[in-house]
Amino acid sequence: MKLVTWLKNGDEAALGALTGDDDIVDLKAAATLFGMSEAPFESMLSLIRSGEGGLDAARQVMVRISEEGITDLCTPLGAAKLLAPLPVPESVRDAMAFEDHIINCIRVQGLKKLAGIDEAIEKKWGRRYTLARFINRAWYERPVYYKSNRFSVVGHDAEVPIPSYCRRFDYELELGIVIGKAGANIPAARAGEHIFGYTLFNDFSARDEQMQEMKGRLGPAKGKDFNGGNAMGPVLVTRDEIPDPSNITLAARVNGREWSRGSTADMHWSFEEIIQAVSRDETLYPGEFIGSGTCSGRQGRGCGLEMGRFLSSGDTVELVAEGIGTLRNRVI
Amino acid sequence: MKLVTWLKNGDEAALGALTGDDDIVDLKAAATLFGMSEAPFESMLSLIRSGEGGLDAARQVMVRISEEGITDLCTPLGAAKLLAPLPVPESVRDAMAFEDHIINCIRVQGLKKLAGIDEAIEKKWGRRYTLARFINRAWYERPVYYKSNRFSVVGHDAEVPIPSYCRRFDYELELGIVIGKAGANIPAARAGEHIFGYTLFNDFSARDEQMQEMKGRLGPAKGKDFNGGNAMGPVLVTRDEIPDPSNITLAARVNGREWSRGSTADMHWSFEEIIQAVSRDETLYPGEFIGSGTCSGRQGRGCGLEMGRFLSSGDTVELVAEGIGTLRNRVI
Repeated sequence: MKLVTWLKNGDEAALGALTGDDDIVDLKAAATLFGMSEAPFESMLSLIRSGEGGLDAARQVMVRISEEGITDLCTPLGAAKLLAPLPVPESVRDAMAFEDHIINCIRVQGLKKLAGIDEAIEKKWGRRYTLARFINRAWYERPVYYKSNRFSVVGHDAEVPIPSYCRRFDYELELGIVIGKAGANIPAARAGEHIFGYTLFNDFSARDEQMQEMKGRLGPAKGKDFNGGNAMGPVLVTRDEIPDPSNITLAARVNGREWSRGSTADMHWSFEEIIQAVSRDETLYPGEFIGSGTCSGRQGRGCGLEMGRFLSSGDTVELVAEGIGTLRNRVI
Repeated sequence: MKLVTWLKNGDEAALGALTGDDDIVDLKAAATLFGMSEAPFESMLSLIRSGEGGLDAARQVMVRISEEGITDLCTPLGAAKLLAPLPVPESVRDAMAFEDHIINCIRVQGLKKLAGIDEAIEKKWGRRYTLARFINRAWYERPVYYKSNRFSVVGHDAEVPIPSYCRRFDYELELGIVIGKAGANIPAARAGEHIFGYTLFNDFSARDEQMQEMKGRLGPAKGKDFNGGNAMGPVLVTRDEIPDPSNITLAARVNGREWSRGSTADMHWSFEEIIQAVSRDETLYPGEFIGSGTCSGRQGRGCGLEMGRFLSSGDTVELVAEGIGTLRNRVI
């Protein structure tokens, strides 16, 4: 199922599911009509928390809508104002699972000199990955991640203001998951069961501030944390509709021109491995969000920083993935 | 007022306020008795969100309890099972506002060598703060902070398990604030109005993992994120009861012996300045928590790492501050 949160009657956040024709079905109204008023359709979070029971109820609703040809509970997706599928996640973690993102960033930023890597070291290590291995050995030993502001999440077509302190504004092409089932010490082999679904994630970044503050060693803060900085959507696709999450092609377009292309096939750390690592001695709860990190690899570079290109006011950024759709945001 | 969340009848989280004799008044039950059933006493979060109106109602209740000599709504603090005052904050940020914490950590960890600081550089910079300034110039330009797991918050007397992956377990002596009023771009001069209250914060840390993962440049994650890792309490003291937050003496005891002593007078960045920085282009909401960072300075060192001493299973850690009380946790 493809699930959305949209503004019904212009101002009331409501939970919906998409028909095959991309109409939004108002799940709560439909459940009322079908005498299923107990169904947990108050919000995306209530649906996620209800587990398989809630999803089953939603599927029943969609079957009846289709079979009975009910159309007056449907709103065309294109005519609806969407919020992020999960407007305020329980938490937002963002990983850095793509090796090439690190390598490209290190090259662009000239960190080589900073880390004291000279020709002798490059000769000794002698590989494409010299820089990454030298600086980030820790990265190969565990999936690293930081935590972002769950209140700065916005959805498809939201306008994203460039923070007043930023001169180098950037997008990041990412896939994200939402946790569906609570658990701690989840082995990677069973982590898939804890994934509720997938969505696109544009982790807008104030690169100038980020690069400075990260020298303070506590990771990104104001480089990532500002109102509107975490765009998610357009829909949340349930796990059963993504048969092979390790082979999803993603792309980013700026003003209609493709800047980035990548694939989850290039993730060094899978979502399952990330869940295993995060959940060590730490309980994950339904409604928590985890991003993949910038999707870079054999097909392209997943953000402007890696190419020395940045966004300007008025630019429109679209992230695209087959099976999920297009997440479009205008930078202002 | 001193506010608590405690387990009424053993299992029901309830909001309370302390009398001068350290009895907990059940605010909701009292409001019902006094015909004030509209008062926002469902939880600490509902009280915080209600702003000054809720606090006024709580003060009225406490006056009547005292004047009318009502005792059957009171539970002795010592006999109650406390939770964290705000059991699940809306977010948890932790700053690093004390300069000496950084200097001591750098010294202990031998980061001098790592950063390539040699005698010539030390001679050139020639100050006590050479190391900190060299590595962390960014730290002097802005308050840095990371975000922790709001679900791993526990209260007074909670047992804190050492994560299975940790061999160097540590405490951190910190003061924390809870935001009471929403706002963005809050100037430091008015930031005090946005503070609801103060509490003690023990940011338990898995130092071995933290030091490794931070090389991945995204800040602390599993070094700080594990169940039970964020102890807060015992009470949340409203702002009006802390006339001079820049002069609070804090101490930490391990098994009854003092290991740490410090003062908020040694904060390089005040809470007001931290709020100003965090809220740039970013809305802060009621119920968000911000920690001061490890309290080190002229009086002592605020965590074990700075002294090369760590905690063992069975150790009891107490954080103490005048006007707030004692936050005690046993490490298991």
